[in-house]
Amino acid sequence: MFRNQYDTDVTTWSPAGRLFQVEYAMEAVKQGAAAVGLRSTSHVVLATVNKAASDLSSHQRKVFKIDDHIGVAIAGLTADGRVLSRYLRNECINHAFVYESPLPVSRLVVRLADKAQVCTQRSWKRPYGVGLLVAGLDETGAHLYYNCPSGNYFEYQAFAIGSRSQAAKTYMERRFEAFNNYSRDELIKDAIFAIRETLQGEKLTSSICTVAIVGIGEPFHMIDQKIIQEVIDSVEIKEDAAAADQAPAQDDDKSSEAAPMDI
Amino acid sequence: MFRNQYDTDVTTWSPAGRLFQVEYAMEAVKQGAAAVGLRSTSHVVLATVNKAASDLSSHQRKVFKIDDHIGVAIAGLTADGRVLSRYLRNECINHAFVYESPLPVSRLVVRLADKAQVCTQRSWKRPYGVGLLVAGLDETGAHLYYNCPSGNYFEYQAFAIGSRSQAAKTYMERRFEAFNNYSRDELIKDAIFAIRETLQGEKLTSSICTVAIVGIGEPFHMIDQKIIQEVIDSVEIKEDAAAADQAPAQDDDKSSEAAPMDI
Amino acid sequence: MFRNQYDTDVTTWSPAGRLFQVEYAMEAVKQGAAAVGLRSTSHVVLATVNKAASDLSSHQRKVFKIDDHIGVAIAGLTADGRVLSRYLRNECINHAFVYESPLPVSRLVVRLADKAQVCTQRSWKRPYGVGLLVAGLDETGAHLYYNCPSGNYFEYQAFAIGSRSQAAKTYMERRFEAFNNYSRDELIKDAIFAIRETLQGEKLTSSICTVAIVGIGEPFHMIDQKIIQEVIDSVEIKEDAAAADQAPAQDDDKSSEAAPMDI
Amino acid sequence: MFRNQYDTDVTTWSPAGRLFQVEYAMEAVKQGAAAVGLRSTSHVVLATVNKAASDLSSHQRKVFKIDDHIGVAIAGLTADGRVLSRYLRNECINHAFVYESPLPVSRLVVRLADKAQVCTQRSWKRPYGVGLLVAGLDETGAHLYYNCPSGNYFEYQAFAIGSRSQAAKTYMERRFEAFNNYSRDELIKDAIFAIRETLQGEKLTSSICTVAIVGIGEPFHMIDQKIIQEVIDSVEIKEDAAAADQAPAQDDDKSSEAAPMDI
Amino acid sequence: MFRNQYDTDVTTWSPAGRLFQVEYAMEAVKQGAAAVGLRSTSHVVLATVNKAASDLSSHQRKVFKIDDHIGVAIAGLTADGRVLSRYLRNECINHAFVYESPLPVSRLVVRLADKAQVCTQRSWKRPYGVGLLVAGLDETGAHLYYNCPSGNYFEYQAFAIGSRSQAAKTYMERRFEAFNNYSRDELIKDAIFAIRETLQGEKLTSSICTVAIVGIGEPFHMIDQKIIQEVIDSVEIKEDAAAADQAPAQDDDKSSEAAPMDI
Amino acid sequence: MFRNQYDTDVTTWSPAGRLFQVEYAMEAVKQGAAAVGLRSTSHVVLATVNKAASDLSSHQRKVFKIDDHIGVAIAGLTADGRVLSRYLRNECINHAFVYESPLPVSRLVVRLADKAQVCTQRSWKRPYGVGLLVAGLDETGAHLYYNCPSGNYFEYQAFAIGSRSQAAKTYMERRFEAFNNYSRDELIKDAIFAIRETLQGEKLTSSICTVAIVGIGEPFHMIDQKIIQEVIDSVEIKEDAAAADQAPAQDDDKSSEAAPMDI
Amino acid sequence: MFRNQYDTDVTTWSPAGRLFQVEYAMEAVKQGAAAVGLRSTSHVVLATVNKAASDLSSHQRKVFKIDDHIGVAIAGLTADGRVLSRYLRNECINHAFVYESPLPVSRLVVRLADKAQVCTQRSWKRPYGVGLLVAGLDETGAHLYYNCPSGNYFEYQAFAIGSRSQAAKTYMERRFEAFNNYSRDELIKDAIFAIRETLQGEKLTSSICTVAIVGIGEPFHMIDQKIIQEVIDSVEIKEDAAAADQAPAQDDDKSSEAAPMDI
Repeated sequence: MFRNQYDTDVTTWSPAGRLFQVEYAMEAVKQGAAAVGLRSTSHVVLATVNKAASDLSSHQRKVFKIDDHIGVAIAGLTADGRVLSRYLRNECINHAFVYESPLPVSRLVVRLADKAQVCTQRSWKRPYGVGLLVAGLDETGAHLYYNCPSGNYFEYQAFAIGSRSQAAKTYMERRFEAFNNYSRDELIKDAIFAIRETLQGEKLTSSICTVAIVGIGEPFHMIDQKIIQEVIDSVEIKEDAAAADQAPAQDDDKSSEAAPMDI
Repeated sequence: MFRNQYDTDVTTWSPAGRLFQVEYAMEAVKQGAAAVGLRSTSHVVLATVNKAASDLSSHQRKVFKIDDHIGVAIAGLTADGRVLSRYLRNECINHAFVYESPLPVSRLVVRLADKAQVCTQRSWKRPYGVGLLVAGLDETGAHLYYNCPSGNYFEYQAFAIGSRSQAAKTYMERRFEAFNNYSRDELIKDAIFAIRETLQGEKLTSSICTVAIVGIGEPFHMIDQKIIQEVIDSVEIKEDAAAADQAPAQDDDKSSEAAPMDI
Repeated sequence: MFRNQYDTDVTTWSPAGRLFQVEYAMEAVKQGAAAVGLRSTSHVVLATVNKAASDLSSHQRKVFKIDDHIGVAIAGLTADGRVLSRYLRNECINHAFVYESPLPVSRLVVRLADKAQVCTQRSWKRPYGVGLLVAGLDETGAHLYYNCPSGNYFEYQAFAIGSRSQAAKTYMERRFEAFNNYSRDELIKDAIFAIRETLQGEKLTSSICTVAIVGIGEPFHMIDQKIIQEVIDSVEIKEDAAAADQAPAQDDDKSSEAAPMDI
Repeated sequence: MFRNQYDTDVTTWSPAGRLFQVEYAMEAVKQGAAAVGLRSTSHVVLATVNKAASDLSSHQRKVFKIDDHIGVAIAGLTADGRVLSRYLRNECINHAFVYESPLPVSRLVVRLADKAQVCTQRSWKRPYGVGLLVAGLDETGAHLYYNCPSGNYFEYQAFAIGSRSQAAKTYMERRFEAFNNYSRDELIKDAIFAIRETLQGEKLTSSICTVAIVGIGEPFHMIDQKIIQEVIDSVEIKEDAAAADQAPAQDDDKSSEAAPMDI
Repeated sequence: MFRNQYDTDVTTWSPAGRLFQVEYAMEAVKQGAAAVGLRSTSHVVLATVNKAASDLSSHQRKVFKIDDHIGVAIAGLTADGRVLSRYLRNECINHAFVYESPLPVSRLVVRLADKAQVCTQRSWKRPYGVGLLVAGLDETGAHLYYNCPSGNYFEYQAFAIGSRSQAAKTYMERRFEAFNNYSRDELIKDAIFAIRETLQGEKLTSSICTVAIVGIGEPFHMIDQKIIQEVIDSVEIKEDAAAADQAPAQDDDKSSEAAPMDI
Repeated sequence: MFRNQYDTDVTTWSPAGRLFQVEYAMEAVKQGAAAVGLRSTSHVVLATVNKAASDLSSHQRKVFKIDDHIGVAIAGLTADGRVLSRYLRNECINHAFVYESPLPVSRLVVRLADKAQVCTQRSWKRPYGVGLLVAGLDETGAHLYYNCPSGNYFEYQAFAIGSRSQAAKTYMERRFEAFNNYSRDELIKDAIFAIRETLQGEKLTSSICTVAIVGIGEPFHMIDQKIIQEVIDSVEIKEDAAAADQAPAQDDDKSSEAAPMDI
Repeated sequence: MFRNQYDTDVTTWSPAGRLFQVEYAMEAVKQGAAAVGLRSTSHVVLATVNKAASDLSSHQRKVFKIDDHIGVAIAGLTADGRVLSRYLRNECINHAFVYESPLPVSRLVVRLADKAQVCTQRSWKRPYGVGLLVAGLDETGAHLYYNCPSGNYFEYQAFAIGSRSQAAKTYMERRFEAFNNYSRDELIKDAIFAIRETLQGEKLTSSICTVAIVGIGEPFHMIDQKIIQEVIDSVEIKEDAAAADQAPAQDDDKSSEAAPMDI
């Protein structure tokens, strides 16, 4: 590995004006299991791959409920994600207590981004190693944000992060124009399709993915495993043949073994 | 890359009396998407390029309203810019609360510069990686300032920062003498022209730029996308031929891909 | 040993998005004496190997009672494990005092994980060098968790950590589907079997292992050495022949001598 | 560049008893645009070169009013100079509030020097990179001091700092004996002459220099640009021929381009 | 000596999951003069070698009384041992004051171990360089513990630490099964025998060793030098011949000269 | 320059038991302009060389009045000396306020030495780079002390510090036995003679030296320049011939140019 | 000098379990001027060499009175010794104030040792570079202790520290058995003899040594120079011949010139 003298301290700029430690933390997001999010005008769906580490274990949680109207899906260091989720929950509770109304999604996202930015400007800390897809519903409608370790955030119609997320992004880019008018069930279906893209040939079952939804008249909650399996089954029949033809892309196939900290 | 022993710590002077870390932070501004500002005696216009990272996302905000009479456009680390914008907003609110009058632009700019200077004199921090064009209107008229990571600030008639901003500066230098007497609409038009210069051959559309204005009788606000597109369209017709002739300068064409932190 | 410039500071990311110091702390868990845990719907059993350092000494404690309904088994740095156990005890006592009800296992596990995560994000600390199997019973039934130095935790049906734990995991993976319906005594028996797997040819006696149980109607307590020996003896008779056939796997046979800090 | 192990930390002495980091900070003063000061018994005049960075910008301020009876001219890091000016202003205001009389110049200069000295004895700070010419009038007459990044200060009859200041010093050394009895206007004229020396062949106009004065019956204020231009014009006529003969010294001609932080 | 990049900071893990600085501190214990401890069910005896540095000096104290029922013998850095002894005394006094009963030995040992553990997890400290044999009597009988710089502790029937302690351990391992039923005097005799083993050929006299006892009806106190000499003398007569035959092991003979800090 | 790994940190001992950083700070004293002190039983005289940096400047102050009965002369970093002088003044004022009597010289000197010692035992500070000759009169008579950057102090009959001070010391060593009975004027004369020795051939004038005195019936004050010049003139006549014969010692002739921080 | 990676930080253990920085600080003691102490049952005498740095100076104090019943002699860094003496004085005063009885010598010595130990376990400090011979008288008789930079202390019948102290130790080892019954005057005489041994051929006069005594009926005080000279003179006559025969050992003859910080 090439030695670079500007990349061991988060408060050191490189001559080209880059903060390498922040960029390296963003790599941790790419190594985590994939997470996708989609949004219509009224609903947001989050989906993650979470294979159990072994037959003996339950899987690691990758989707967290923050409040009735907000939830997050994470990719990267799970421990960092859990700590940030707790922070988000506190922010929502405090707001609700003071103002007696739910915290708007965009404001929560800014606070999260500010918390992440601080970690990029203190020499004794490190940037968080986790990316968060924030799904929420407020008076301005349904929203999907991506919060990055650098302290940036972006609003998306649909987005995928984590290992082999490019396949999911490609799938969604072909279809995103229709998303705004999708029904609740169509969103769930496309989320499952997108997450399947990241598996690259591996068989999708309800046991290795989590799907959650928030929308009008529907607080943030996980979709039942049975319903997910039904969607998968209905799809399988139609696409059996097609799947056989498709050669799986194996670009970063080994990342899941290489990732040693369950990221 | 040449190893330089004086450039890893912001509190270390080089033998020639330079602070390399501050200079490197100023490089981050050059890598950000371009931002331009123009000023007549009564109005200031800010314009930024903000292409969305992908079709799926909304674009990153580069222009922030600070108060009714002040707004900023940023180039560089967006997260740093957002944190500084929040600081500016607090300063304005506090001043208005205490003195019941808007904070003069020049005083806000000094406070911002002082905040940036502190980060250049503490070993456990880093200089901010963002440049801000501050547009404001107060009793002394319309003002345009540029705040730099080094803690310096400058007043400008017109200025451009960020990636390929030299082209915009060249454009504006040919015309700046007339700016003082420009009408509101002429300012907007020239801001769009200047921002187009930074695209170097790429087609400008209203979707990849933001234009904001503040002036007498007009609080700081973003210009409607439709109006921007109309200006662009009216220009296109006249300049179609000329554009074909002009060979695009491609000096730093790749900087947008190289910039990995959405700066 | 290959020199790696990103692995001496816990707050330094590697270019590939890894925190090597956290991974190295996880190695300490692998070097500790083995610990296994199994769970039925009503009971959890923990078992550890704890050979005395010499004939003159008692063995080091590897299983700690936290509260009537919770206990832990550790692998790795015993001193770190003891300090964390004390923290857990305080959390349980405080909860019981305030709410007059036992602390749910899952909440205790999250607090433990958060405490571990903090040590991965401060430059003047180090990650804990110990893994904990947390066994507990609450209103939602019996639970078995594994808390890792990285700040992650996982729920398991059955799990083994520490030196040569792979053999125990393999043993349990073949049988885990039945565990949920096991009786209390079957669980103990399988825990002893699993722990025997990690000894790889060495003779298991009640003096070199500790077994503890928590379950419905049974607070967390250590199983009497005599009972353990009886189980071992009853097994020996049946498996005498089989044991002779089985070539012991000697992959990491030397780790116990190499571990210099009684981990 | 020769590597010197004693020059990266401000609290490290070299074997020869030098503090290199302080010396390097003094280099920053030499790279700044020139500033000169002259003093008669009743008046002090400060003059600085401040070319605008581009046609579009106003020039950076190099002369600051501190109080009615005190002003400073800076050379070096403008941001550091501005922060120190604010400190000086506060000292003057506080003194006036408590004692109801203006702060004597010499006492202000000592406080400034003490503030600078502290930055040379703490490992987490850096010496200020700015030199200040302090001009003031108090009961003991007119004073001109130079405050250096090392925490030293000197009283001068006349002095010049910054880029190519040697030429101005040489000019003033030939004439300084008469300064004490100069009239107000003669001082201004010689200040402009001295500042012209630092331009070395470049044409002096009122737009690229600032002149300020404080004296008996005259609070510290900037001299009007028009008056400066008149002085320049009256001189030009006489010296046209002589200027042509004089070969410009170009020893440090490139320093203004090399100085990247507007120092 | 082989350069190892993971062994200069106590908070740095090696890739194999070891904390080298803690292991190095444990080496300091091995270099100190030997200390042994033996325990019956009712008594504990501690014995140390403490040769005076020169004829002119008294010997350094290696055995400290903590409370009536507890005492310690140390090997390693004497200064660290003294500081820890004072801590132990305070703990005992505070407990006695609050609860009006002596502090149980096992609880004192845990507090000592926790204090040692903290020093292994802070970057600005160092692990203590001293091992302590803690002898105590409480309601659960007589106890002998060994507290190690790593923060671990072990209960022992008999143990020896420090320079050439292996010989004493070997001696005691041959006999330890009988220790539980030893009388008070037999324990003292065997302690002296064990300590003689560590001298390897050098003649044992009462002036170069300290023996202390605590037991039922007998508070912790040093055994009178005269009594020790009597025991030695009674032994000498019997073993004179045997000693001549025994070739002294000289493996680490030079450690006492090499140890420069009276450890 | 020879690289020495033990000389960059003031808290690091060399293997030979030296603190190089303290020794290097003492070098700074040797580079400063010379200062001498002489003492009779009733008076102390201090004298310093203080050439102005240029014709335009007044000279840097090297002698400071602390209280009516105490004054100091410094050699080394002037800024450090000034800060210490202020500290001394505060100590004197506080003592006088509390006890209504002047602070004894020896006690002031100890406090100064203690302040210097602290800077040699903290890793984030640096030793002061200045030596102080403290002249004072109290109930025990007249005193002359030398305070060194190491935190040591010495009482002297006569002493010289700074650049080329050896010549002055040699001069005074030949005569010091008579000093005790010198009159006030003889002391002044010999102080001027001694200071002339340090100039090594350069002509002494009253403008390049400062002489101060404190004694019975005479508070600490500077001697008038006119009186000094008279003494010099009276001497010149007699010694004109002798001076011509004496070959000036040029051992450290260049130190004054090498000293870059006005030390 | 051999580079050793474990010897620049006081909190870093070497692989062999040594703290090199503490050992290096102990070297500073060896470089200081010699100090000796002797003790009978009723008196303790301290003696030090303290040659003045030059004819002009008084000598540096090496013996300090702490209280009426306690005094110290130091070797090593005088500044460190003075700071520790002040600490000891405060301890004595506080004890006397609270308990209305003098502080026992052994308790003072332990507090001093604890203060020294702290400096060996904090990364931002350094071990003290001074050894102290503590002479005191309390209810348990006369005592002589040696406090070492490592935080250790030893009780001695007689001891010598500092440069060429081995000769004094050898002298005293030949005679120490009689010391207990020495009269006050015999102790003084032997102290002077011992100190003379460290001079190795150089002539001893009362002006280059200090002798102090504390004993029953005699508070700690310095012996009058005249009395010392008388003792020396009475000895000289007898030993004139013998001294001529004795070849002076010159092993570390140059240490006094090499010691640059008056240690």
